[in-house]
Amino acid sequence: MALSYELRCRECGKRYDNAPLSICDECFSPLEVVVDLDAARADFTREKIAAGPTSMWRYKALLPVPDDYVPPTPAGWTPLLKAPRLAQRIGATNLYIKNDAVCLPTLSFKDRVVSVALANAQIFGFDTVGCSSTGNLANAVAAQAARLGLKTYILVPADLEAAKILNTQVYGANLVRIDGNYDHVNRLCSQIADRFNWGFVNVNLRPYYAEGSKTVGYEIAEQLGWRLPDNVVVPMAGGSLITKIRKAFKELIALGLVEDKPVRFFGAQATGCSPISTAVKTGADHIEPQRPSTIARSLAIGNPADGVYATRCIRESGGWAEDVSDVEIVSAIQELAETEGVFTETAGGVTTAVTARLYAHGRIKPDELTVTCITGNGLKTTDALNGCYETQRAVRPRLTDFEEYLEEGHQELAFGGVNVR
Amino acid sequence: MALSYELRCRECGKRYDNAPLSICDECFSPLEVVVDLDAARADFTREKIAAGPTSMWRYKALLPVPDDYVPPTPAGWTPLLKAPRLAQRIGATNLYIKNDAVCLPTLSFKDRVVSVALANAQIFGFDTVGCSSTGNLANAVAAQAARLGLKTYILVPADLEAAKILNTQVYGANLVRIDGNYDHVNRLCSQIADRFNWGFVNVNLRPYYAEGSKTVGYEIAEQLGWRLPDNVVVPMAGGSLITKIRKAFKELIALGLVEDKPVRFFGAQATGCSPISTAVKTGADHIEPQRPSTIARSLAIGNPADGVYATRCIRESGGWAEDVSDVEIVSAIQELAETEGVFTETAGGVTTAVTARLYAHGRIKPDELTVTCITGNGLKTTDALNGCYETQRAVRPRLTDFEEYLEEGHQELAFGGVNVR
Repeated sequence: MALSYELRCRECGKRYDNAPLSICDECFSPLEVVVDLDAARADFTREKIAAGPTSMWRYKALLPVPDDYVPPTPAGWTPLLKAPRLAQRIGATNLYIKNDAVCLPTLSFKDRVVSVALANAQIFGFDTVGCSSTGNLANAVAAQAARLGLKTYILVPADLEAAKILNTQVYGANLVRIDGNYDHVNRLCSQIADRFNWGFVNVNLRPYYAEGSKTVGYEIAEQLGWRLPDNVVVPMAGGSLITKIRKAFKELIALGLVEDKPVRFFGAQATGCSPISTAVKTGADHIEPQRPSTIARSLAIGNPADGVYATRCIRESGGWAEDVSDVEIVSAIQELAETEGVFTETAGGVTTAVTARLYAHGRIKPDELTVTCITGNGLKTTDALNGCYETQRAVRPRLTDFEEYLEEGHQELAFGGVNVR
Repeated sequence: MALSYELRCRECGKRYDNAPLSICDECFSPLEVVVDLDAARADFTREKIAAGPTSMWRYKALLPVPDDYVPPTPAGWTPLLKAPRLAQRIGATNLYIKNDAVCLPTLSFKDRVVSVALANAQIFGFDTVGCSSTGNLANAVAAQAARLGLKTYILVPADLEAAKILNTQVYGANLVRIDGNYDHVNRLCSQIADRFNWGFVNVNLRPYYAEGSKTVGYEIAEQLGWRLPDNVVVPMAGGSLITKIRKAFKELIALGLVEDKPVRFFGAQATGCSPISTAVKTGADHIEPQRPSTIARSLAIGNPADGVYATRCIRESGGWAEDVSDVEIVSAIQELAETEGVFTETAGGVTTAVTARLYAHGRIKPDELTVTCITGNGLKTTDALNGCYETQRAVRPRLTDFEEYLEEGHQELAFGGVNVR
């Protein structure tokens, strides 16, 4: 059966048959999947999508898999939450959260990209798959590969958070701790993929993998009633996600599913690893690599593969990028949880803090329809909140003791201003 | 507007108007919500449900909320996964997992009951809500109440898992550690609810709360293509969930949405807290309270409120109950993750281990359509896996070092039988 997608060089446009390739052999630029929109048109209608599964696979016609592909695991289709209480705190009036903190099956948006990558790993016949990862990707690959019965090697920086390591090992994956940062790990994975002929989702399968991120954009548009927002705020690690949300919006416009309108893209990074936001703020047209030092480990990519494309996406759209300190990240995690009941990992703290600043600086107007992307779950980075909450004394199980405890608490609040929470 | 539900005593049948009440003032038996099925018939059709939201609120017509209730948070609608690889390991051929490890918004089935309870807390005008909890309920109440802007008091046993405590505090809830086990905490909450006029979801709002569990049953039936399974395996803490899944199935039969057929109910407990399974196995018609001692904290209720009803449900259906050791729980957590990519908390380890035993003992036949209920996420009880995985040495980021590392690993496997995973 003829496939309705192929690989193409992002820069020179050279076309390739589908294969586990990520770099153009002519100009050494990255390859990208191009889907034949005309071929997809008949299957990508509002009605057919609504009748599809309640997962990201409702958009299968625009994803690089064969028409008859049967997805083994539900993934994506996360809530788009109206966020009135957070909005009030940060001076917004029309704010939504795209909540991939609860993305199936492993609680980050990486489940989307891994679903598409592993489908292609199977098509290409790999019996061993893997990735280089700052954590969320490791979890997603390990879990989804387990379900498929694939052998798995996951390479991570040696100092990764405990919960992310456990949440990889439990699936039976071979977890290899590398003495270096993400950029070291990533380079090593390229060599390993070549040497052993393994399918590394974010290396030799990267063009397919990256297409999975488009589903965030499709979902935002569908959940807004098939219309585009004014602004999107997106965390940036490798820089791919923000470009793929834009690609998704463009495809929806081309297919006539949403009305064409300008959407501004805003990028969020931690100051301790801010190569993309720095490029945007200084007007540079290249990315100056950085040595990451931030609690936002899942964004700690000092030499982002898609940094230049992310910068272009932001600039061309009239958006902006910001970066925030580790202290701001922790406060923002708490603020998001307290106002909207969403517990995010450090990356979501970055996005929330940056969103607040964009309103404060007037870069986003209060009434513009703005979507802020939360990409991972707080249970994966609990260490970030160490020391934020006092352990209260245990109370005896009697009503009088409880009443006494309440009075103590109120006194503390009244006299010392200590928050007893 | 007249409501199509009311409270009724489970034993004497006395009817009550809707109110924050849980005990019959005539016979001191528990009250239950009864929904008028005839009134719901027109809105509870396969077509209307399919056109509803992709959350448990698609079944609103059979839940105790007014017709015009607008739910603030998506909850439920979790995957029903075919589990062929787990099935093969335990001698089954037709096994499904109902995966509430990824239930929205806080990753346990408690989100379902809390959604219904807080809807009613608002209807009754409570400005402060709370619960007694072994952890998952605390998370669900704290998160959902935060989004509603309600003041929250959560009472837990003082020795609860760290992740469950943090995942309550982060939402801004007042977390009160009680020097006692769940049963002590629960009794205290009854007194507090009366004294302060607070809405405790599992105390004075319990009849409404419990109805939320029916949505597990509705979803199983709908996801099986509107038919009932042969067997359901359900973890038991207070014992309510298993009875509510049965209630859901009965309602679906009464409304003609599924064909009537016998379904057998199987209960799962940890041996360290097994008052209900003990009653089932010994044929007792009452529950002998136990002092809990198990790593399955979320099931550690020694004096289960609905224990007698759970026992009856199991017995009347021709099912059975089993309990498993802490060691078996840990192995089952790993087995489920390795085969199906589902990382569950200790309670899911209980259910998985019990399911395996039911097949091994011939209580469930291999080809019977069996659904096993996973009710919470593994990231909440990571301590249970402490010591299960060795920390491997960090490898330098060079191909030769990686090759050396692989060889070491294979040698270990070959000579010592040490699992290098």
